[in-house]
Amino acid sequence: MSATERRLPFYLGIDLGGTNVKSGVVDDEGRSLSSVSIETHAARGPEAGVATLAEAGRLAVEASGLSWDDIAAVGLGTPGTMDIAGGMLLEPPNLPGWNNFPVRDRLAALLKKPTVLQNDANAAAYGEFWVGAGKGVSSLVLFTLGTGVGGGIVEQGKIIEGRHSHGAEVGHMIIQMENGRQCGCGGYGHLEAYASATALVKRAVEALERADEETALRRHLAAGTLTARSINEESLAGDPLASRLMRETAHYLAVGAVCLMHLIDPDIILFGGGMSSAGPEFIGLIREGVRRMAFPLPAAKTIIDYATLGGDAGYIGAAGCARMAFGERSTG
Amino acid sequence: MSATERRLPFYLGIDLGGTNVKSGVVDDEGRSLSSVSIETHAARGPEAGVATLAEAGRLAVEASGLSWDDIAAVGLGTPGTMDIAGGMLLEPPNLPGWNNFPVRDRLAALLKKPTVLQNDANAAAYGEFWVGAGKGVSSLVLFTLGTGVGGGIVEQGKIIEGRHSHGAEVGHMIIQMENGRQCGCGGYGHLEAYASATALVKRAVEALERADEETALRRHLAAGTLTARSINEESLAGDPLASRLMRETAHYLAVGAVCLMHLIDPDIILFGGGMSSAGPEFIGLIREGVRRMAFPLPAAKTIIDYATLGGDAGYIGAAGCARMAFGERSTG
Repeated sequence: MSATERRLPFYLGIDLGGTNVKSGVVDDEGRSLSSVSIETHAARGPEAGVATLAEAGRLAVEASGLSWDDIAAVGLGTPGTMDIAGGMLLEPPNLPGWNNFPVRDRLAALLKKPTVLQNDANAAAYGEFWVGAGKGVSSLVLFTLGTGVGGGIVEQGKIIEGRHSHGAEVGHMIIQMENGRQCGCGGYGHLEAYASATALVKRAVEALERADEETALRRHLAAGTLTARSINEESLAGDPLASRLMRETAHYLAVGAVCLMHLIDPDIILFGGGMSSAGPEFIGLIREGVRRMAFPLPAAKTIIDYATLGGDAGYIGAAGCARMAFGERSTG
Repeated sequence: MSATERRLPFYLGIDLGGTNVKSGVVDDEGRSLSSVSIETHAARGPEAGVATLAEAGRLAVEASGLSWDDIAAVGLGTPGTMDIAGGMLLEPPNLPGWNNFPVRDRLAALLKKPTVLQNDANAAAYGEFWVGAGKGVSSLVLFTLGTGVGGGIVEQGKIIEGRHSHGAEVGHMIIQMENGRQCGCGGYGHLEAYASATALVKRAVEALERADEETALRRHLAAGTLTARSINEESLAGDPLASRLMRETAHYLAVGAVCLMHLIDPDIILFGGGMSSAGPEFIGLIREGVRRMAFPLPAAKTIIDYATLGGDAGYIGAAGCARMAFGERSTG
């Protein structure tokens, strides 16, 4: 990208994950100028961690060819639980030892820039809203499919953060109140307990234990390669059990999507994360479920699709949050 | 109220129900100056109907002691389905023959005032948010319990209307995706199919058919007095089956509340409509369910209570919507 195409001001986005920190510089129109990824080393604790966040940010600015003075503000996305407005991590399950850590202000002190904190899935939703698959819409719901099911809701251009920073915990809506599966969080009947990659593998193992049917998944189980990815691949190859499991997963996600359509009624519902590479058949099954179960108008009109920014959604969205919090919208 | 206590400007709210039209004049701080109710005569169709709406509005202004010139704008709440932004009724189930009727502009032409349309349950939620049980909060969810289960969501002071005017159809979230009860709308496993007054009576009849247990509800069934109200009264009097049915109803509503807490995470969740007169025990049971099932932080902090405006919430909220749409916030 040539310098003339870049639109001032510039924002730095940092996406803190349990394994990696991803960071990049984004211009005022959401175009990424750089992207770097370094290891989190979460076990070293929050003091070392905040230095790692700053290091990732510095590398991203360096890679962008800009100087620090060009950066207007910083957005940081982290996994929950947190106090978004207070800039605090509370008890993040994937960051042991980072409890009650004022990560926003500590990072701001290191980087000497106005800094905003956001939930990582909310940030990803905002990234998709700003420049991804939701560009141009006014409201959006993102489901992120991975080990768990996370998500974010953008309504009339604003993230629904929630009073206790628990907005858009879409994996933890109750879709089966009687005899529901237990969720990783301890609750019962949550969407995540049915539709996460973890839940998909668990349901596959249960099905293999129950029946003697001929299926390639039995070989994967023995070889230790039974994953959401291999189940999807065997489904595409025509394996009956794998196909049934993927159809069920799509149905569960359609139930979750219908609930959001009847509560938020957004322009668009996106599916991101690992399972978003499952291909056109899987999203087609989700669409079919939605058309069958939702009210006629949203069933016909709500766009159901995959997210498009992949692993960049988090830092781009975090940079977008910095722009929302500190940017002068009239410039650029 | 003395004239000096009234705060300019004034708004007219009109709440169109299948049976009655309720209307009142509200000042800039949400205080009601008058309230009138006349029959809808929905079967006479939309042309007669819009004249009835105008008549109710005129009676309300007359009763307020103000003149028409004092009214800044009009807010109209109606049952769905509708196009809120377009001011159209689409296919309202309780207003047969009113399909595709531009009710907002027709009413505005009769009353010669700027007029805004809102879903009636959204308007009621806004009324509770503005001057009712939610006064002073920044986000609120209202469940209205009656023949069906309706509701409204106010987030950061704004109603979530939805892209297709289907926001906050809280009765139609799916809480039981497998073997769910059929809802009045045709869907399966919806909250309304479990927790509405209609569903409560249906569950009572089923329980009476199933078992021979001694219960006062059998007498009510024979006498034609088996209603949500009588079931609640017998529950309070210690009848075991009635108590079980009310406990179950509270549990279903708690499931719905938990879903909203994990999606919107509002300051407060309110229960209005007929069943909101069930008393302190019932809301206590809902609170217990919420504490058991929600994430710790919202479980401890989210306020769960009854709505307080009763049947006035609709017209007060509709007037509040007129104020939002046309008012000069800095005045008053």
